[in-house]
Amino acid sequence: MKEFFQPRGVAVVGASREPGKLGHEILRNIIDAGFEGGIYPINPKADEVLGLKCYPSVTQIPGEVDLAIIVVPAKFVNRVIEECGQKGIKAAVIISGGFREVGPDGEKLEQELVKTAKKSNVRVIGPNCQGINSMPARLCASWPLVKLSGPISVVSQSGTVFAALGCWAEDEGIGTSKQVALGNKCDVDETELLEYFADDDQTKVVALYIEGVRDGRRFLEAAGKVAQNKPVVVLKGGRTEKGAEAAQSHTRTLAGLDQVFDTAFKQAGLIRAYSVEELYDYCKALAMLPLPRGPRTVIITSSGGCGILATDTCEESGLEVVDLSSATVDRLKEKLPPQCIFKNPLDLTGSATTQMYDDALEILLGEEGVDSVLAIVGDPMPGIAEVVEKHLKKGKPVIAVMLGGGRAEEEEKRKLAEKRIPVFSDPVRGAKALAAMYRYAKRKNLNQQ
Amino acid sequence: MKEFFQPRGVAVVGASREPGKLGHEILRNIIDAGFEGGIYPINPKADEVLGLKCYPSVTQIPGEVDLAIIVVPAKFVNRVIEECGQKGIKAAVIISGGFREVGPDGEKLEQELVKTAKKSNVRVIGPNCQGINSMPARLCASWPLVKLSGPISVVSQSGTVFAALGCWAEDEGIGTSKQVALGNKCDVDETELLEYFADDDQTKVVALYIEGVRDGRRFLEAAGKVAQNKPVVVLKGGRTEKGAEAAQSHTRTLAGLDQVFDTAFKQAGLIRAYSVEELYDYCKALAMLPLPRGPRTVIITSSGGCGILATDTCEESGLEVVDLSSATVDRLKEKLPPQCIFKNPLDLTGSATTQMYDDALEILLGEEGVDSVLAIVGDPMPGIAEVVEKHLKKGKPVIAVMLGGGRAEEEEKRKLAEKRIPVFSDPVRGAKALAAMYRYAKRKNLNQQ
Repeated sequence: MKEFFQPRGVAVVGASREPGKLGHEILRNIIDAGFEGGIYPINPKADEVLGLKCYPSVTQIPGEVDLAIIVVPAKFVNRVIEECGQKGIKAAVIISGGFREVGPDGEKLEQELVKTAKKSNVRVIGPNCQGINSMPARLCASWPLVKLSGPISVVSQSGTVFAALGCWAEDEGIGTSKQVALGNKCDVDETELLEYFADDDQTKVVALYIEGVRDGRRFLEAAGKVAQNKPVVVLKGGRTEKGAEAAQSHTRTLAGLDQVFDTAFKQAGLIRAYSVEELYDYCKALAMLPLPRGPRTVIITSSGGCGILATDTCEESGLEVVDLSSATVDRLKEKLPPQCIFKNPLDLTGSATTQMYDDALEILLGEEGVDSVLAIVGDPMPGIAEVVEKHLKKGKPVIAVMLGGGRAEEEEKRKLAEKRIPVFSDPVRGAKALAAMYRYAKRKNLNQQ
Repeated sequence: MKEFFQPRGVAVVGASREPGKLGHEILRNIIDAGFEGGIYPINPKADEVLGLKCYPSVTQIPGEVDLAIIVVPAKFVNRVIEECGQKGIKAAVIISGGFREVGPDGEKLEQELVKTAKKSNVRVIGPNCQGINSMPARLCASWPLVKLSGPISVVSQSGTVFAALGCWAEDEGIGTSKQVALGNKCDVDETELLEYFADDDQTKVVALYIEGVRDGRRFLEAAGKVAQNKPVVVLKGGRTEKGAEAAQSHTRTLAGLDQVFDTAFKQAGLIRAYSVEELYDYCKALAMLPLPRGPRTVIITSSGGCGILATDTCEESGLEVVDLSSATVDRLKEKLPPQCIFKNPLDLTGSATTQMYDDALEILLGEEGVDSVLAIVGDPMPGIAEVVEKHLKKGKPVIAVMLGGGRAEEEEKRKLAEKRIPVFSDPVRGAKALAAMYRYAKRKNLNQQ
């Protein structure tokens, strides 16, 4: 696997001079993301692409090269793999479609491809996939361009889910580590990647989009092993009968009964998400925030309404919106003005200030009976980013939720992105993410007992 | 109500020269949103605020003024209302807190206020509220600043929900019509506003955030009446016991049993949302897109995975991901390349082009058996905004979903915002919004039979 994620050099087979073509865009993304090893465009009809010397075949590359990104039409792929073997390239990502997904002829091509790859000692991701990223190696061999290195690794049967996670994580200053779009998974599959990510120190959380798995037992064993040390969040397509049918058309995988998957996911300790945004939200929270030690949460809010909505979601998701002790209330009353509602949610009301959040966080995070705080900011609150940052250092999770704050909110969110601190735009989403963190923490504690 | 939403002049009582103070920010927002009637800051200690001549009291205002925005401390509000009566001001929005929400003393103040208002012939929104907006009158008497006029009117027991809806609708080119933050609703309440919005041509959809209602029967009657002509989307805080307790603290309303509300909402024909984002999503779809005539939907996608996720959500939400007729498939096959998967979802695969979306939409929207199309764009797709715009003109809903497209996607979303066409960032959110549209359409059809 190392050759995929830390290659010494990368060949782009099918590099094109024409903007808009995949063989152009992927090469450009590899260059623009700042990959520091050798980059070798392969195109027998060009001398140069994007300022780089072009070679007619991978066998002609003078330097060390471990990874080939292949974009040529399906019928040429087999020969390219043979040549990779000759050059000693051990890893190939086949972007090209036209294999198993198009019917019997493609299936035959894919079978040949598998044989050739084995014979040539080349491991294959794809075919028919959107590529891979390895941000620690500054490698973006996919589209669109992403550059930000972070803690989330992604294994996805959908190129779009893969791409959306990369883009969102970059926009919010979270970043990704390794991302793999599986495609037809003729060789490398989700199980093997999970096994690799289990021991990869740069991966703190694994996001998984799957429709079905080939060897359920092996997959669950691998996933369960990862989940003992780091969270695995799974989104599964094909829950309904029609959805399962569509999955069958998409990647020829049998989606199977959802109830069976659900039970298996729970047994393996995976955290389940039900939309792409949920998958992202849960990964972001689990990757960037300390885990809660228990279910007891306090909601601090400038918005009564959002505090109530968060309370509903917490209570429905296994968290406890605990009553504040009278000692805690006394401490809060010493610092906060009397118009606050000294309950849980702690409502700082519309006259909330950044200082009041600071004081409230100071007191509540110091309480033995508080495992986490949901800090809902429903008004412009300049400086709140620094306050959240300061209190996160204490080791308990502070889930920041910001909405309704206009331009001032944008500025605080920008600062939080710079500080790589997650923030949510809806109290329900924030509370669900916290609940996902608690589910993982509970499971982990059970395992350790 | 007209005096609230189309005032000839507005007084800001408690206007302040100090940036950051509410009496400063609200006056500035009224000026910046471009209100064209007279704007009169009231402050006995200032000659001028933000370049406008200041008056010591509303009674000193020389021009016509219908609306007073009141930001002075609670104990002065009663006198201000008396003076409003003297000046002939018929509408007051009381931003100031310190009334019923703070306990017995505040409650007494509020009772006096109600009496004075009645005697003075002044209608009151608030107290303890975030203000009102009336975008057709270019009036932003709240915070943060919003300016974009659109079809969504908002009635909210939460200032933050009110503000978030205004900000999101502005950011996405949707816009709002009238927005009211109810606060303590000592006089004007959700029921009266619903009655007003029922006959307001500028309001196409009503977004409602409530925790409880005072007179359930009257509320449901009013809401049901509105829902016969325009969609009402409702988000209710206080679903759980703890949430209901928090609602009791927030606005002293009894949240009541959720099951009772749920049944009542259904009977009245309201569309229920479960998060602030859902409330916004449903309003945006219902306000900006034609209604589907039935449940039959086709999903067009460049992303197999997102097509499957959308299928699951559609099927779980009462929509029908229908099988394509062989005649339809033939028509599609004439126009689209063979690697497409000619089923529903119609998977254009990763090699999808804008032209392919154009062709597919042309054929599918022309089919008698198709009531709506979910168009999922999971790759960079330059020009897709114009294609969606073109096909929306045919009168069937096209729900655009875009994710994973990087900078190219941002550009298309920017164009869609300019064209005021809704777009969603998650296939699950898009499918849920379509399902909400269908629920409303079904109810409306039943009513008309």
